[in-house]
Formats: sequence, C-alpha cells, structure tokens
Amino acid sequence: MITTTAPDERTHRPTYRRAAIIGGGVIGVSWAALLLARGLDVVISDPRPDIEEVVRAGLDGIAPTLAELGLPTEHLTDRLSFEADLASAVAGVDVVQENGPERLDLKQRIWRTVEQAAPAHALLATSTSSIPATAIAEGMAHPERLVVGHPFNPPHLVPLVEVVPGARTAPEVVEQARDFYTALGKKPQVLRREVPGFVANRLQAALFRECVHLVAQGVVTEQELDEVVTSSIGLRWAVAGPFRTFHLGGGPGGLPHFIEHLGRGMEAGLWPALGNPTFDDATVALLTEEAREAFGGGEDDVDRLAAARDRAQIALMRALGGTPHAA
Amino acid sequence: MITTTAPDERTHRPTYRRAAIIGGGVIGVSWAALLLARGLDVVISDPRPDIEEVVRAGLDGIAPTLAELGLPTEHLTDRLSFEADLASAVAGVDVVQENGPERLDLKQRIWRTVEQAAPAHALLATSTSSIPATAIAEGMAHPERLVVGHPFNPPHLVPLVEVVPGARTAPEVVEQARDFYTALGKKPQVLRREVPGFVANRLQAALFRECVHLVAQGVVTEQELDEVVTSSIGLRWAVAGPFRTFHLGGGPGGLPHFIEHLGRGMEAGLWPALGNPTFDDATVALLTEEAREAFGGGEDDVDRLAAARDRAQIALMRALGGTPHAA
Repeated sequence: MITTTAPDERTHRPTYRRAAIIGGGVIGVSWAALLLARGLDVVISDPRPDIEEVVRAGLDGIAPTLAELGLPTEHLTDRLSFEADLASAVAGVDVVQENGPERLDLKQRIWRTVEQAAPAHALLATSTSSIPATAIAEGMAHPERLVVGHPFNPPHLVPLVEVVPGARTAPEVVEQARDFYTALGKKPQVLRREVPGFVANRLQAALFRECVHLVAQGVVTEQELDEVVTSSIGLRWAVAGPFRTFHLGGGPGGLPHFIEHLGRGMEAGLWPALGNPTFDDATVALLTEEAREAFGGGEDDVDRLAAARDRAQIALMRALGGTPHAA
Repeated sequence: MITTTAPDERTHRPTYRRAAIIGGGVIGVSWAALLLARGLDVVISDPRPDIEEVVRAGLDGIAPTLAELGLPTEHLTDRLSFEADLASAVAGVDVVQENGPERLDLKQRIWRTVEQAAPAHALLATSTSSIPATAIAEGMAHPERLVVGHPFNPPHLVPLVEVVPGARTAPEVVEQARDFYTALGKKPQVLRREVPGFVANRLQAALFRECVHLVAQGVVTEQELDEVVTSSIGLRWAVAGPFRTFHLGGGPGGLPHFIEHLGRGMEAGLWPALGNPTFDDATVALLTEEAREAFGGGEDDVDRLAAARDRAQIALMRALGGTPHAA
C-alpha cells in the first residue's frame, strides 16, 4: 500500500492498495515487480495461456535488481494474482497501468472495457510509447480519466515516467498520476503538449539517427561510438542536461553567450551537415555485423551485458544521491 | 615526466618532459593544469599581456578538481613558465598542444612557425573543434606531423579526446597521440575519417537541435527537458552507449531485432517528425528567459553550478570504476 503525499491544499490523498497490470510483457512485468516491491497487491491480466510462467520467470530475473535498489524482494508473489478477464481484473483496483500491444484499435477496446469495470476513483494510465491519449480515449465515455504514464524501460530501474495528458484529460488526473509515480520513487515529468514520441524517445531518435549515419559512413565503429558517448556526453548528461551543460559552457554569460558564440556556428555548420540515414539492406547488414563484433552473438551475451549494465546503473544512481527507490 | 606504454613491438617509447601550450584560454589552462599535475614542465605561449594573471587564476580554480581526481596539486606552478614568442616557446619541448582561436589563417600561421622551431621528435597536436587537420597542415612543410587532439571540455575532467588524423597525417603520429593521451589518463578515440564536428559534437548538435525544437514548441521547459535527460537517457548513456543500449533493448535478438521491431518505426515515424529550429529572435528570447528562470542570472550562479556539476561528475566517475586520472 502507498499513500501519495499530495500538497496540503488538496484534501484528497489517494491510497493505492491494489493495481491491475494489463499486459504481462517486458514492461508489464517490470511495473508489476516495482508495484509488488512497493507493497501493492497486483493482478495481471493477459490472455496468454502461459502468462503465469512468463511473469514468474520475469520477476525472478528482476528480483536481484530490486534488492540492489534497496527494495524488499521476499514474498513478492504472495500478493500477485492473474485474471485473464479484463473486466474482472480491474474490478476493485486503485490503479490500472496498461501495457498492451501498440495498436490503437486494441488499446481503444481495452480502455472501453476498463472504464466500465474499474472503480470511479481508480487512476487509469497507459504505458504507450507512441499512441496519444487523445486517440486512445476517443471511444471512452470518460476520456478525462485516461493519461499516458510512459516509463523509460525498464520501469523498475530507470527513474523517468513521462506523464502526457490527452486533449481531454482532466488536470486532476495529471496531478494524481504525478503523485502516484512520485510515491513509487519515480521521477515523473508532465509534458505540456502531446507530441509523437513524447520527449525522451524523440531525443534518443535524434541522437541515434546521427549515430547510424556516422557508423554507416565509416567514421567510427559502433563500439567506438559508444565509447565516445560514455566518455563524454553520456557522463555529462547523467549529471546535467543539455541546457544546463551549454549554460555552463557559456561561462559567465551563460546560455545566451553560448548561443551567440557557439550555437550559431552549430546552426550554420553542424545542423545542416547531420546525416539522414535509412535502414536499407546494406546499413542493416553493417549494423548487424558490427553489433556481433562489439557485443557477441548469443542470447547469454545479452543477458550478461544487461545485468552488468544494470549494476553499473545502480552504482551510478547511488553516487548521484541515492537510488530513486531508497526509502 | 610521463613515458607512454606503447605495445612491446614498438621500440620507440617517447618520454614527455616538457610541453608547450599555445593559447592560454579556458581549454589551454585546463590542458596546462592536467599536464602540470602529471609532472610535465609547461610553457604557455599567448600574446595577451595579462596572460600570467589569467592562467594562474585559472589554475587556482581548477586545483580543487584535480585534488578530487586524486592528482597532486602542490607546487603545480613551479614547473610553469610563459613565453610569448612562439618559436622560443616550442624550442626543446616534447609535445605541443595548440588552443588558438578557431580561425584557419591563424592556425596555419601558428603551425608553420611551430614546425620549424619545435624538435623533430615532438608530438604536434591541435585542440581545434571545427577545423580539419588537413586544412591547417596545408602550409606546413611536414603535414604528416600534425594531428587533431580535440578534448571534450574541460580536458582536465572529461575523459574523451578525439584523435583525428588529417589526409596526410602519419599513422605513427596518430599512435603517438593515442599513447600520449592514454598516459595522461584520458580516453582517446581515433576517428577513421575527418568529418565536420568530429563525433561527440555532432551527436551533441543532433540532440540539442531537438531540445531547442521541443522547448520552442512549448512541449517542455529547459529545466523539464534537462530533468527528462538526467533521469533517463543521460543515466543510460553514462554506462552504455546508444548502440549497446539498443542492442540490449532488442532482448535476445539484440540490435538486429531492435532495428526490425523499433528502429523501422523510428525511421518511419520519428526521424521525419524531428524539428528544424533556428536561433531566430523569438527563439533566442525564449531560451534566454527560460535559462534565467532555470539557472539564475548572475556570474556567481554559473561558477557555483559548474562546481556542483563537476563534483557530481567526479562522484559518478568514481562509481563507474575509478576516476580516469587515478594512479
């Protein structure tokens, strides 16, 4: 159970005891792990016949990371249940976090069912990374209830949750979502406008486009490019975002000085020179070959590298002021 | 003094006792601080009449960071000297690191003088961020001697140095530069092709273009965007570069799976939707106003924020496996 710590002037302080996780894929399992570790009862609704097996295996894989984050991991599954029928799953819950396939028709169908069956007080959030709440809510009787709560994968580890209201989402629902994710130890960020890809994935896409270009052009290999990033901009952006970085790069004159003296050169010289690659056959073949050289080819390699990455991530989060999930 | 640890098959292991730093601006002072702390004698050549004062103040500002990095900071200036005359400054040095203004004609003039006056064994490197070695070396009798050694600012703190050969740079000089920067505790990365902006600044420009777009469009404020980055992609890219991140994001199928299942959606949906902002008056006014709100307006604010950022940076580098300058 968690109770959000809303500002004092708000009299309604919701308590979350029971959550429904719709869709038991990678994102759904990660949300479930975090919610269980935070003390909520979790029901998972997914039509897959082997869903229990899949989710329990997923939770076993995540438990060590939860422990490193300082969260309890014993008896996690005591409060876990499964209910394939959507309406039954969401009856009596305080929050619904939906992680279904990224298809508008499916999400619209799911949410029409959920809004009829879930309690009136329940927070209704979709993890979608690509479909606006406005579109998903079109078929809902109460579109003001739905909000995007898009986690940066995996939600049990990376702090960001992008909270994106649709055109008709009620402001109270946005605040309720912000409070809920904060109480979970996340760092929610409310967007002021609905845009495709939201913010983090747009930034990631902008950088990755140039990464693909530089590798396709033979300037660096994938491994070399990754090393450039981890030894420069990655280090920087972990402690100060791009605007703060350039504000400090401007010296006493700050960001305005930076723009006049370096930004205009960037605008005139670099922005027009950035690449526009495509994932054509030759590019995909090169990217595939270099990935094999850099990271190995087996499934075990991915698991091992991911575990090492997550350990480093937690060490870094500790160094920067405690893990987001520390009590 | 430092001696590079070149592979055994190379019989020539240069020893660096004395360095010339050309240009005593922010980058030059930072290089000087690192080289002094690493035990080299440093002569600074800069025509400014107040250069001694400026450099000594700069070193005083950097010393605490050097100490936090585990480098000695006592008697730093015992091995520091100044020589405005360029030819005199580089006589007898083992390495020249040039940090002059980013103007081709000035750099060409500097390097014509330096190559005549510096010892034949000296490593000749330019910190330029924007001018190819090929162009700078055009007027040199021995263009094979010049290489770009572009630090990510500030060089005393951030590990990356981009080593970029010009069209005529000798392969031995590239290796010499790589060995020298490694011996300094840096993480040099040799580029395979000369491209405008090299790698790190191109990636930074690609991401920042979308940052400016999202703020100009009112999707987020500067402060909100920075928080998105530090709580998601910044954390990620400090421990794993973009290719490794997406390789792991592809699950057991790795990067090829990522490209097929998410990369193609990025190519079709997000890349075409990315913004193309300009630094027009309205945009600059908005960026300036939001920077003032986010970071304060005074010079003291910049110094204070930069010091806090650098402390966080060092904590992060320690967490990720020791500072790059640890003995």
